[in-house]
Amino acid sequence: MSLDHEKLLQSYSLLKGFISPSPLVKNEWLSSEFSCEIYLKLENMLPVGSFKMRGAVNKILTLNSNDEEHGVIAASAGNHAQGVAWAARMLGIKSTIVMPKNSPMTKIENTKSLGAQVILFGLSFEEAYHHAKEVAENRKLIFIHPYEDDSVIAGQASIGFELQEQLPQADYILGSIGGGGLMSGLGLSYSEIEKKPLIIGTQALGASSMVDSLNKGKLKTNNEVAQTFADGIKVKDPSEKMFHILQNVVDEQVAITDEDTAAAVLELMEKARIIAEGAGAINLAAFKKLYQQKPERFKGKKVVLIICGGNIDINLVDRIIEKGLIHSYRKAH
Amino acid sequence: MSLDHEKLLQSYSLLKGFISPSPLVKNEWLSSEFSCEIYLKLENMLPVGSFKMRGAVNKILTLNSNDEEHGVIAASAGNHAQGVAWAARMLGIKSTIVMPKNSPMTKIENTKSLGAQVILFGLSFEEAYHHAKEVAENRKLIFIHPYEDDSVIAGQASIGFELQEQLPQADYILGSIGGGGLMSGLGLSYSEIEKKPLIIGTQALGASSMVDSLNKGKLKTNNEVAQTFADGIKVKDPSEKMFHILQNVVDEQVAITDEDTAAAVLELMEKARIIAEGAGAINLAAFKKLYQQKPERFKGKKVVLIICGGNIDINLVDRIIEKGLIHSYRKAH
Repeated sequence: MSLDHEKLLQSYSLLKGFISPSPLVKNEWLSSEFSCEIYLKLENMLPVGSFKMRGAVNKILTLNSNDEEHGVIAASAGNHAQGVAWAARMLGIKSTIVMPKNSPMTKIENTKSLGAQVILFGLSFEEAYHHAKEVAENRKLIFIHPYEDDSVIAGQASIGFELQEQLPQADYILGSIGGGGLMSGLGLSYSEIEKKPLIIGTQALGASSMVDSLNKGKLKTNNEVAQTFADGIKVKDPSEKMFHILQNVVDEQVAITDEDTAAAVLELMEKARIIAEGAGAINLAAFKKLYQQKPERFKGKKVVLIICGGNIDINLVDRIIEKGLIHSYRKAH
Repeated sequence: MSLDHEKLLQSYSLLKGFISPSPLVKNEWLSSEFSCEIYLKLENMLPVGSFKMRGAVNKILTLNSNDEEHGVIAASAGNHAQGVAWAARMLGIKSTIVMPKNSPMTKIENTKSLGAQVILFGLSFEEAYHHAKEVAENRKLIFIHPYEDDSVIAGQASIGFELQEQLPQADYILGSIGGGGLMSGLGLSYSEIEKKPLIIGTQALGASSMVDSLNKGKLKTNNEVAQTFADGIKVKDPSEKMFHILQNVVDEQVAITDEDTAAAVLELMEKARIIAEGAGAINLAAFKKLYQQKPERFKGKKVVLIICGGNIDINLVDRIIEKGLIHSYRKAH
């Protein structure tokens, strides 16, 4: 499929039959604090806790019956694994997920419980990825790339179309960039809107290759190892395809320290009563950074933070709370 | 106002103009685990983190212009305080909240930040309550009772009407009873529905006077001190008015240990990615208890858990996580 607006809208109207819109809620405390209207798009409330099933469902809906019979395959240790497994089960086709051997046991079990056949292979995403491509070839399975696939991007675009219905006049939308699927889809969904919101892409400072590339207007590859606790957006090298889409649809980009993102995880627990993973919470941290630089640009505006997922290990949540409580003097060392 | 169905529906259609429906989300992991469809009604996503503003908004909408000029008053150290303050500010009238002197500083600050005048008085809810009644008399303020008021109950009924639109065919609804306002309103909203869901009321074992009364079919007053960490439902003596309503609309009732409720707080963080206070999480604990007693009654059924609020101190969340991680051997002592 292609990514023209008509096609994206067609995907959206199909997807609506399978995925209920994620909630958009206005946050009272953050809105008061920053003198604007802050809305959270709660992708973490979707069935397997992230936006990833949107793209997976849309991809599967494009398959012909022969492909469907063979089933789909993906490589992931995270949200994409569960998104694909969930989508396949819901649409009644077989799925195989290749996960690195060192994946957390709960993620392996969760993926199996969604009906996927799990293959443990290699010790990194890259090894799992190459093995999945091989298995796809050998077994004639349809490989679902986490972002470099028009059908997947078109599926993620449904976040944007939902937002346009839920809040027609948004001024700013902040969303994180891993591979870039979410922000490509979101951005493209707004391409025909006359009074477009400003679209701000965020990355972790330790894995900011796409933000750096966008800042320079030039693809920056062969980066050193990516480092962030926000594993949902920990991507080392940006894809050229995604770079070109994002260049057109992202208006501004910013990289955020893990420390600020962790503080935002805690703040969202206290003020919004949600568990967000780093890749989601980073957008609150990014908003605060931009607000500090120039508060007046946000005054009275409608700001949407895309909380793209909530799958964070509870041990990590525990450490973030401890650190936050000590930092704010609510607990002794 | 009265509590006949026509009146409740009128309140609902008015309220809709002021309060967006709270999200209803199906939970994947709990549904798989218990072979049924488990839905969470997320009142903790409402503006100030609980259902309480529903009743407060409805009460204020019934006031005449003279009453409105004087403003409203309430006594509360918890969700009712913030619900009334939020509703009053939104509708442009003055509010006064009497809080016990030992209320947590964050709750006092939050209530003030919503524009309420806060009076600190006494060291218990009862002392604050009696003082609020006196101030109301002297200053001609309208007192908003947290539950023993038809307009407040009619406001809480909006939860039920929303549910009827979001999930027309629910089989079971579990909701907690503090004073009984939520479950009275919810229950009454279903009174004209032919295929009614079974309505199950829950209380903490240490503050189960209403459940005990319903079990005996007779009001049980002069109870010893109420004891539970679920402060949203920590009510010592049940009200006669509420008892009579609940007798008619609650089909079954159950009391739950604080230990089970705390475990449910953690489970909702991990499986639903939300922060629920004890008064909300107790309904998951109650469902699990009833399921263990008789799993087959829930097979394939649609079960709604009312997550009535999310205002829980982060220190308490911290202790619950620590205890849960140790209990499940994911952390050393």
